[in-house]
Amino acid sequence: MSVTAAIAANEQAIGEQSSNARVTFRTQGALEGPTLVKLVSREHTIAVDEPDVLAGGNAHANPVEYALASLASCQAITYRFWAAKLGIQLDGLEVAAEGDLDLHGFFGLDSAVRPGFTGIRLEVTPLGPESPERYHELADAVDEHCPVLDLFTNATPVERRIAVPAS
Amino acid sequence: MSVTAAIAANEQAIGEQSSNARVTFRTQGALEGPTLVKLVSREHTIAVDEPDVLAGGNAHANPVEYALASLASCQAITYRFWAAKLGIQLDGLEVAAEGDLDLHGFFGLDSAVRPGFTGIRLEVTPLGPESPERYHELADAVDEHCPVLDLFTNATPVERRIAVPAS
Repeated sequence: MSVTAAIAANEQAIGEQSSNARVTFRTQGALEGPTLVKLVSREHTIAVDEPDVLAGGNAHANPVEYALASLASCQAITYRFWAAKLGIQLDGLEVAAEGDLDLHGFFGLDSAVRPGFTGIRLEVTPLGPESPERYHELADAVDEHCPVLDLFTNATPVERRIAVPAS
Repeated sequence: MSVTAAIAANEQAIGEQSSNARVTFRTQGALEGPTLVKLVSREHTIAVDEPDVLAGGNAHANPVEYALASLASCQAITYRFWAAKLGIQLDGLEVAAEGDLDLHGFFGLDSAVRPGFTGIRLEVTPLGPESPERYHELADAVDEHCPVLDLFTNATPVERRIAVPAS
């Protein structure tokens, strides 16, 4: 299905019944080695590991690299959709993201330091023949509607359950 | 390097020079098809796509599934490290995460609906011979020190740059 057709089909389905907009995504898996984690989302496998300095086999990217990849890819795809919605030609797109961690947080060495990224930098290069103004218009629309940018820049409730026998 | 050795080596390096705790992770890549995104983090490739209903070829998991996988794997690995730090035996771990999206947000159909997850549920099953109390103690320590749980549950500054010619 083309991007334009996908937008029309989704917007029609949501217009007909508002609850069609509500979707749930999942992943599940297990720790299979010191730091090797294998997960499945629908029919797709996602494998995660740490480098040697963090006790892993370095077989795959690590969790925070996947987090950055999630942000970078969500930006790229949201550019694709919103370019189609706004009628802005987008021939391609390059994206880079980097995030700073202070390991005092992860290792519990300083309770004043958060364990997560202290800051993230995102650079997007949209490619195509349109004016800079139009690509900035596109960027503004994307940044308002990108699911993972929203996840990163705002707080999201996470309900946690630890499945151990009741004490 | 074992988990215990990695903890000792990192804590020693950070103790000797505080700035050793500051690390930066990166990813970069490009939109290569309607929704296919290929990224590289260090020597690892991460490929992302959307299902057909979102105009993709469904060749890989999508950005929000990678976000959930990032959270699930970060939890698993943080359990591994903090079990070692606290002397709690951890023979394995199963993890599942799911997140709810309301596509009114992504498609810009209702400005009151956020584009990102409205809620996430995370279930962790630590495996091993310890008492439930000890695994709950471990869970509390993990939830205070897990980088991606912090990223999701708190706001993180994202500095954005759009690389188009100046207008």
